[in-house]
Amino acid sequence: MLNGEKRIPRPLRWAMIGGGRLSQVGYKHRSGALRDNTAYQLIASAFDIDAARGRDFGVNLGIPAERCYDNYQQLLAEEAKREDGIEVVTIATPNGTHFDITKAALNAGIHVICEKPLFFTSAEAQEIKALAAEKGLIVGVTYGFSGHPLLMQMRAMIAKGEIGDVRMVELQYTHGFNASDSVDKFSDAQKWRVDPKIAGPSFVLGDISTHTWYISQLVLPDLNIKSLLCDRQSFIPSRAPLEDNAMVLMHYENGAVGRMWASAINAGSMDSQRIRVIGSRASLEWSDANPGELKFEVQGQPNQTLYHGMPYLDESALADERLGALHTEGLAESWANIYLKFAIAINAMQNGDSKTLETLIYPDINAGAEGVRWIENCVRSADNGACWVNYE
Amino acid sequence: MLNGEKRIPRPLRWAMIGGGRLSQVGYKHRSGALRDNTAYQLIASAFDIDAARGRDFGVNLGIPAERCYDNYQQLLAEEAKREDGIEVVTIATPNGTHFDITKAALNAGIHVICEKPLFFTSAEAQEIKALAAEKGLIVGVTYGFSGHPLLMQMRAMIAKGEIGDVRMVELQYTHGFNASDSVDKFSDAQKWRVDPKIAGPSFVLGDISTHTWYISQLVLPDLNIKSLLCDRQSFIPSRAPLEDNAMVLMHYENGAVGRMWASAINAGSMDSQRIRVIGSRASLEWSDANPGELKFEVQGQPNQTLYHGMPYLDESALADERLGALHTEGLAESWANIYLKFAIAINAMQNGDSKTLETLIYPDINAGAEGVRWIENCVRSADNGACWVNYE
Amino acid sequence: MLNGEKRIPRPLRWAMIGGGRLSQVGYKHRSGALRDNTAYQLIASAFDIDAARGRDFGVNLGIPAERCYDNYQQLLAEEAKREDGIEVVTIATPNGTHFDITKAALNAGIHVICEKPLFFTSAEAQEIKALAAEKGLIVGVTYGFSGHPLLMQMRAMIAKGEIGDVRMVELQYTHGFNASDSVDKFSDAQKWRVDPKIAGPSFVLGDISTHTWYISQLVLPDLNIKSLLCDRQSFIPSRAPLEDNAMVLMHYENGAVGRMWASAINAGSMDSQRIRVIGSRASLEWSDANPGELKFEVQGQPNQTLYHGMPYLDESALADERLGALHTEGLAESWANIYLKFAIAINAMQNGDSKTLETLIYPDINAGAEGVRWIENCVRSADNGACWVNYE
Amino acid sequence: MLNGEKRIPRPLRWAMIGGGRLSQVGYKHRSGALRDNTAYQLIASAFDIDAARGRDFGVNLGIPAERCYDNYQQLLAEEAKREDGIEVVTIATPNGTHFDITKAALNAGIHVICEKPLFFTSAEAQEIKALAAEKGLIVGVTYGFSGHPLLMQMRAMIAKGEIGDVRMVELQYTHGFNASDSVDKFSDAQKWRVDPKIAGPSFVLGDISTHTWYISQLVLPDLNIKSLLCDRQSFIPSRAPLEDNAMVLMHYENGAVGRMWASAINAGSMDSQRIRVIGSRASLEWSDANPGELKFEVQGQPNQTLYHGMPYLDESALADERLGALHTEGLAESWANIYLKFAIAINAMQNGDSKTLETLIYPDINAGAEGVRWIENCVRSADNGACWVNYE
Repeated sequence: MLNGEKRIPRPLRWAMIGGGRLSQVGYKHRSGALRDNTAYQLIASAFDIDAARGRDFGVNLGIPAERCYDNYQQLLAEEAKREDGIEVVTIATPNGTHFDITKAALNAGIHVICEKPLFFTSAEAQEIKALAAEKGLIVGVTYGFSGHPLLMQMRAMIAKGEIGDVRMVELQYTHGFNASDSVDKFSDAQKWRVDPKIAGPSFVLGDISTHTWYISQLVLPDLNIKSLLCDRQSFIPSRAPLEDNAMVLMHYENGAVGRMWASAINAGSMDSQRIRVIGSRASLEWSDANPGELKFEVQGQPNQTLYHGMPYLDESALADERLGALHTEGLAESWANIYLKFAIAINAMQNGDSKTLETLIYPDINAGAEGVRWIENCVRSADNGACWVNYE
Repeated sequence: MLNGEKRIPRPLRWAMIGGGRLSQVGYKHRSGALRDNTAYQLIASAFDIDAARGRDFGVNLGIPAERCYDNYQQLLAEEAKREDGIEVVTIATPNGTHFDITKAALNAGIHVICEKPLFFTSAEAQEIKALAAEKGLIVGVTYGFSGHPLLMQMRAMIAKGEIGDVRMVELQYTHGFNASDSVDKFSDAQKWRVDPKIAGPSFVLGDISTHTWYISQLVLPDLNIKSLLCDRQSFIPSRAPLEDNAMVLMHYENGAVGRMWASAINAGSMDSQRIRVIGSRASLEWSDANPGELKFEVQGQPNQTLYHGMPYLDESALADERLGALHTEGLAESWANIYLKFAIAINAMQNGDSKTLETLIYPDINAGAEGVRWIENCVRSADNGACWVNYE
Repeated sequence: MLNGEKRIPRPLRWAMIGGGRLSQVGYKHRSGALRDNTAYQLIASAFDIDAARGRDFGVNLGIPAERCYDNYQQLLAEEAKREDGIEVVTIATPNGTHFDITKAALNAGIHVICEKPLFFTSAEAQEIKALAAEKGLIVGVTYGFSGHPLLMQMRAMIAKGEIGDVRMVELQYTHGFNASDSVDKFSDAQKWRVDPKIAGPSFVLGDISTHTWYISQLVLPDLNIKSLLCDRQSFIPSRAPLEDNAMVLMHYENGAVGRMWASAINAGSMDSQRIRVIGSRASLEWSDANPGELKFEVQGQPNQTLYHGMPYLDESALADERLGALHTEGLAESWANIYLKFAIAINAMQNGDSKTLETLIYPDINAGAEGVRWIENCVRSADNGACWVNYE
Repeated sequence: MLNGEKRIPRPLRWAMIGGGRLSQVGYKHRSGALRDNTAYQLIASAFDIDAARGRDFGVNLGIPAERCYDNYQQLLAEEAKREDGIEVVTIATPNGTHFDITKAALNAGIHVICEKPLFFTSAEAQEIKALAAEKGLIVGVTYGFSGHPLLMQMRAMIAKGEIGDVRMVELQYTHGFNASDSVDKFSDAQKWRVDPKIAGPSFVLGDISTHTWYISQLVLPDLNIKSLLCDRQSFIPSRAPLEDNAMVLMHYENGAVGRMWASAINAGSMDSQRIRVIGSRASLEWSDANPGELKFEVQGQPNQTLYHGMPYLDESALADERLGALHTEGLAESWANIYLKFAIAINAMQNGDSKTLETLIYPDINAGAEGVRWIENCVRSADNGACWVNYE
């Protein structure tokens, strides 16, 4: 179990770009990074496109006013001049800015933690991957739901063969908060999500399905898509060509099949994200609505529910436990877990600890690139009449 | 509420073909038809391909031995000679025999209640539809889950616009009882289900998805498919070409979309059948695992659960109620409800009551034909590389 | 599994007293008794205090008009004159009449099936027990929830020691249908339930908690109360002295403890009845809201859910199965199971089959007497300031 | 919504006594206090009875080694000498030490945050209350589950009359982690919980039921107990006289009744804590196993579920929201909310802001004293044969 004791010699000097007062996600980054004050310290920021608001916000969080910068360019330039300048930066800005900021940060020698979807194209992802490798820097991607301990349990049980051969992967991330177009009217801060210039080639595919897609890769690291078909809709016409609903079918290389349903128009649904992996012997199912429970259903036996924090779990799941059995863990713990792993990776990179880098499981540049690839293939299919396409 | 009092002047003289001692479904037919002894009396049978076993079984149910016939031909021939001969017959035999037996019964002037999937082809369905019309006889189809009162509630709420415009229909009927091929070995009585000569062109599409498909038509009578795509698999290779798993995507004429997942390899799942209808304002969701509950989820409001038997329900739902609130209803009540409607339809036909025939909602020959059409279109898509096909 | 085949040589000739058109419970008796037409045939009745309405109702159920009697006295007298007269009668009248009618029926040589609570006093119960023994007749009591197959599973698992030593028994039967006193105003047919002259010394204790109390005895046949304490309330003052809410604490002879909560003012609750048995190793929990599921929770292991109809169940549970796994069973199946056992007991009594009588598990006169005793002890405690009383 | 921005001018200088590396609860304190780094900074400690282990632990959390003290006496003495000495201290030591440490801290002019149960006797609580008032210091009590936003929602809905008149309060906090006595053998760090000298006069009553008891006071601030009865057991005999199971009945002054069940031997249960408040019109139910859901059940209407973070909630609930709808909150957010309120109270006290002190709702010295009073009354009843006692 994690109890806040340091896992790296000292906290990393950390800054945030974006994620300010109006952001939905900024607080999750801060809660994740600063959970224990032994992995990161927040010392600089460029929180907001409104520089004054961003500075006020930063000061309210305890950042010295002089390190609350007007924009990311200034942040990178000024911090580079300091001996105690930042080592790692989080990018929580709209999608369309990720590439430029990441590139600039890496070129400034700064490790990057970036929101999903990482970039617009696989070409961009490959360019950044090469740059990060050249610079010896980490790029982590905040698939923020992927740190729940029971996902490690799922991975371990599948790896041990407890469900038999994988036959089907059922994925879902849906909600109804954009069922009405009136939402777009009052929420200016969210409007960019359906503007292709800023959001990229997709809405729900990029905004939410990338989370579930990464979770499927986390628990099924050896499963690769051979071909897929994506059918997407814009039920609020003004969102076209970006989709508010998408249905994907997948064929995996091993003969398994899969489905993904992503939606922002699933009116009234509060279930959110679900993954079910069906094997020849049993199934495993997990939902982020009850992240501390894992259903294990062996055909012909009583159904089982496993709970977080219990001694019967795999050590990889218990290693990420914070509160203990009966004490509900939520999304904040998941973010804290992945931020801690980013810190461990960065520390390992700083110290040339290749063994840690090879074995640590976290959403890295490859995970980010795979998310971009997933969107690209889905969009290519959807834009060709929802036809089957080979996974490229 | 229904309390067993007669709804037609006298019980119909009824026989069963198939559905004997080894049948999974025969008892459901008898429980449905004989629930109150005011709609049917069971007076003749040809229960079994093993005639002696069938006779022994019939006698054990209280049928006179001389009316426990060796086969359906004998049943129809001998009963035709009696003044008190049967008026209606249930066909609960393997799929491949439905057409011949139905045709023979109709030609003998007997109303028919038949298992799903009704026939192999739409051409057969149209031929029988014409024959039934010519003879003035009813053909009912035992979509046995469709009699749950809360499905009438769903239909009423959607018709009243309580969910807004329909955008997506999410359908599922899955289980894991055929996850292992060893099942086929010990269960000789079920082997025919994966033999195309007896089962027809599909396994799970016909065996289970037709139930859910009919339920979707029941609650959404005005929604028509424009095109669909079906991807099917045979995870147990010996079942090929019949599928043990199928994933379908649908485009409806009004712009709504849909999904169906049918599976017999969903290892460990005990959830069975589920329908969710998503509108622009709210969603409705029902599962046959908890048939007395209906979820009503209005975006932006607390989620609601409606319970069977409660005074706030639509009168069409309360009309089919038998046990009352807090008293769990199960599948047997659903069967009883549809069997009662068959009897009311038959009585109306016998009495030339066209008004009843026009307004009564039950799974009739059209519902059976639509199920066959659904399978045909799915199989056509699947056998053409899981491509989109226009719904024909 | 049960499939309707005869379990006794011929159906018993059966009549009903009470349970007519306005009754909440009459239909459950008929559904239970007539489920398969191989255990009972309904041939006579005195359904209603309004004789004309009762006759009309009986005729609508298919009973010959001449055997739809005006009252129970006439029923017993006239049927006694017939060679094909009734053998067994169900008493579904208000509580205050059970004793007189039961006594009259037994004296007429007729087996009795009676609603709970059986009588007002233990003295009455002992008198009837002696009379039934003298006459060689069965008295069954319709604890209608007690026929669910998973209760036999609970009994078997506890007997095998799967939960260890029993430490606590948690019982609950609550609803909110009488939260408002306005209910009493419009429901004349239910008013008697809070009239001590007709209902007896209790409302919810007798009306509902006796069900759950019997279920606890069914699954824990060796557990005996040593002392108890009952605290009861009349939240609608006009109901006093009869309670609409009661809380009971129990000490069992083996050192275990227990609780019962019975309520008709649990506003909005749709959960109904629940039993949890806690052992030193594990707990078992069952609710009639989901009667086909049984929770088995072993401390330190994943929680399990067992489902009705599955091959892993005890043979005693599978023996009472009717519809099979995945096919929802409800309250009607439970009633059918206990009515079938009544018939088997009556047939055994008629044939001097003492072995069957000794081993058959069903709610007999002793179960009915224990229910009366339970109420008596609760009321004695409640009326003495909710003090502890030795169980007498 | 809370996003980490400062709510008080600067973070409070904070120390911990107890709650070190082997503690179950220490991490919850730190996660709560340090959630946003704008309310507290952890600068000193006396974490452990093993001073070296405590110092090592403190250093690993980032505390300067020279401020990792050997014991609380040294901590208070040395910090008093510093200009930047601590302002507030958390006491997370075994129960028996709370009184002495609290008294010493208050006498040193330090605000106190203390674990529950606060002290052994009401006399001690009154003494400390007087001392804190005299010194102008805050004493907060870590009823750590009481910060869930939906509890404020419950409080608001009850206050607005949405459930009508309160009739019954159903409380439960149970688990099975001490079902076996073998637990005590291997867990030395937990052994003190059943030693009366250290734990005080109760085990589960103090250890867990005080949480639920406080929650009931939080949501029902105007409901007062008139009399109660407590029946307690020691199923593992070596724990006697301390109970591992307790059942309490309550009579409130307004005529409502209540129940509490506290247990550490509820084998296999993972449900933990539950509160249901039943009114004349509706009921509200909340469980810490799903703290983001609140059931609202109006008699005669569809049941409702309210979700955290939704705009339809009361502003008092939304004020404590951190992650937003669909994003699971857990126990850590609850702790963060109460720690933030402690900080606001301390800051108000420091600034003579009596208005804030009068209106802020948080577990203060009175809440702690009420918990001690609750235990005292329960134990007095239990030790007098589980008799009714007037609430003193």
